Amino acid sequence: MKPVNAQLPRGARLYLPDEAARKRHVESRLFDVFRRWGYREIVTSTFEYADVLARGTDLGVQENMFKLVDRETGRMLALRADITPQIARIVATRLREEPKPLRLGYVTSVFRYDEPQVSHYREFYQAGVELIGLEKPEAEAEVIAMAIEGLRALELDRFQLDLGHPDFFRGLLEEIKADGGRQQELREALARKDVSTLERVVGEIAPPAHVGDALCALPTLFGHAGVLEQAAGHARNERSARALANLSEVYRLLTIYGLADDVLLDLGEVRGFDYYSGTYFEAYVSGFGASVAGGGRYDHMLGRFGYECAAVGFAFDVARVLAVMEAQGVDVALPGPDFFIIDFTREKTAALSLARRLRDAGASVARDIISRGLEDSLAYARAQRVRHVLVVGSPRTAADQLLALDLAGGGERTLAVRAVLERPEQHFAEAKGKSHA
Amino acid sequence: MKPVNAQLPRGARLYLPDEAARKRHVESRLFDVFRRWGYREIVTSTFEYADVLARGTDLGVQENMFKLVDRETGRMLALRADITPQIARIVATRLREEPKPLRLGYVTSVFRYDEPQVSHYREFYQAGVELIGLEKPEAEAEVIAMAIEGLRALELDRFQLDLGHPDFFRGLLEEIKADGGRQQELREALARKDVSTLERVVGEIAPPAHVGDALCALPTLFGHAGVLEQAAGHARNERSARALANLSEVYRLLTIYGLADDVLLDLGEVRGFDYYSGTYFEAYVSGFGASVAGGGRYDHMLGRFGYECAAVGFAFDVARVLAVMEAQGVDVALPGPDFFIIDFTREKTAALSLARRLRDAGASVARDIISRGLEDSLAYARAQRVRHVLVVGSPRTAADQLLALDLAGGGERTLAVRAVLERPEQHFAEAKGKSHA
Repeated sequence: MKPVNAQLPRGARLYLPDEAARKRHVESRLFDVFRRWGYREIVTSTFEYADVLARGTDLGVQENMFKLVDRETGRMLALRADITPQIARIVATRLREEPKPLRLGYVTSVFRYDEPQVSHYREFYQAGVELIGLEKPEAEAEVIAMAIEGLRALELDRFQLDLGHPDFFRGLLEEIKADGGRQQELREALARKDVSTLERVVGEIAPPAHVGDALCALPTLFGHAGVLEQAAGHARNERSARALANLSEVYRLLTIYGLADDVLLDLGEVRGFDYYSGTYFEAYVSGFGASVAGGGRYDHMLGRFGYECAAVGFAFDVARVLAVMEAQGVDVALPGPDFFIIDFTREKTAALSLARRLRDAGASVARDIISRGLEDSLAYARAQRVRHVLVVGSPRTAADQLLALDLAGGGERTLAVRAVLERPEQHFAEAKGKSHA
Repeated sequence: MKPVNAQLPRGARLYLPDEAARKRHVESRLFDVFRRWGYREIVTSTFEYADVLARGTDLGVQENMFKLVDRETGRMLALRADITPQIARIVATRLREEPKPLRLGYVTSVFRYDEPQVSHYREFYQAGVELIGLEKPEAEAEVIAMAIEGLRALELDRFQLDLGHPDFFRGLLEEIKADGGRQQELREALARKDVSTLERVVGEIAPPAHVGDALCALPTLFGHAGVLEQAAGHARNERSARALANLSEVYRLLTIYGLADDVLLDLGEVRGFDYYSGTYFEAYVSGFGASVAGGGRYDHMLGRFGYECAAVGFAFDVARVLAVMEAQGVDVALPGPDFFIIDFTREKTAALSLARRLRDAGASVARDIISRGLEDSLAYARAQRVRHVLVVGSPRTAADQLLALDLAGGGERTLAVRAVLERPEQHFAEAKGKSHA
């Protein structure tokens, strides 16, 4: 019998058990970091009215939202393309009276009609946080420190956070008063780190000399503490100067956190230009072309929903993290059941009581329900990565005994059924209670 | 400033932090049961081609799917309205060569244009399992035992599983050879337990006496072991007899599991008629009108995707579970951060090192970043349900000390900062490592 045509749409993503276990590992490690920093989960709805979502979403993403007509009202609905606008709306409408700051976290999927790429799907999973109600640079420092702790909790190597601030460049743009087209050319040249085009465009605009120098210096303004001094000479307008002061303070706090080495300042970075109102970052891992996490300050976001309130946050891209872990050979344990019980007796009472006792002790226990020969059952158990096989009713043991085979460590023991029922933890480390962890 | 119009569509559901914590509690308790029975997670995509999903979905649910046009292909997409058909498709296409049985579990949301009701939304969360590749009644017994263990893990009281088998009634229908309209009338009367209508319709059909007796007896065929004997007298056709034999065997196994008291046999139950091919159940909790979980055997499901294979499963309705827990007063601990650190010193070094040390020990730690008076900070900490407040730089302590206030238990202590940094677990039970649990 052949499978019927049952293909998945492009960009749809499913996770088979091994992949799902790795995904859950990533999500729970990050969630545990969020918890340890005092963040609490919030769950948003998958669909909302498209115009409500659009209010907090940049045009490029808006155009890529999955849209559908609400059967009841005829209004357009959309699947969430970003969690931040949803949380901004919830805070502005349901949590505005709550004492600030709010520390909120989420682990969920978002939907965008992006071109599917390696490790990127049209439904993709994010784990992130929002810290709402704090204007101080300590807020940026907190979420950046959390992002770094997240990368460490995932055991990723050779990562780096690129830190930028859109207002440094915005201040320079205000000084030259160039038109939108010119500004766009500058941004594109900067985004490509294309120095010769940048210099040509600056030459054509012919701004005051110090601004021209500053614009042309942007691609070189990346590195550690020295960059701040270097940039200070270029920040003659107030907006650029304020941006630099903010970035310097965030950097100082990260130095106290002991994290300055993990951070690269980059004032020529313009990728987050449209989204962020202040310091922002992207986390990169050596050898992987796309950022695995990104975030920053977006103080304008809640205002779009009628409640002016400062906010910073970040999100990890779970699928990209998984790709990096695979590339770096980070091992995630994918254990099968702790126990697999094969019962050759007719009444199966021993199997049922053993299973119950071991599960109550926190172990995972699968039972062999199919009748097959011992060798076939063992082959199945191995394929399932079972740790211990318990055989009841084997011709090699007495009626009140069982045979315990250690598939992971090797070796076999004959144990009294009653002894295992009475004190499973004396015979198996797995029965020491990890229930409801 | 007023919030802008930012309403949610009808039936969309969000979970604020307290509700999200309760939801996560329910999901992780159930997930832990799944794990202890050897089930592994599978993650399906939220959207698929509508015709592919429809193949595994009954007409009533098909009509209530959220549909949208795929921008790329013009084909209709739909949001999943049920996880089982998705898993059936995945097993039929991607896992058919895997050794059976497969034990799969999931925790996710599904979407239906149902009329929103109390505890029921158009996006609702399910936690469930599928046991694939086992024809024996032990498979039904396993998932029913798991469902009961799930109800217990959730600490729900006064629950009961109604067990039915559609083939008992189907066999009787075959005997009378009534037309579709008549069959429908019988089903509706049975569903309402409307004995007088049932008797009238049976009278009009005028079947052989023993079939008429059987049909009229259906509403009374519920209870414990005695029902099986009672029903045996009515099961003269092969289909009804086989159904009864299957149900008897499941019941016998549940008796060995020690679970017979939690189960009510109900041969007049026709609610799962269209969906199930064998023994099925609904879990009810006293005083709550809707079932909180349901499942059974659907051996036809994988065949719809080109791979004939036996399957049983169930799903819990998370929102209904939450409603029942609330009604029964089941308490879910909603702890805030273990620690809240207030640092009145300028350099904040003590706060940062304390926070790091306590987090590394597995505790959750929030920092007070807003500058405010101690009383305001304590009020905020209480609102966040913080357990311990650590005050650094208080006028009441020396420079190398901190003040530890136990907001939950009451009392305050003065501790040396260094002592807490060196051995946090000696001073706080919360710092005993629950990280990556």
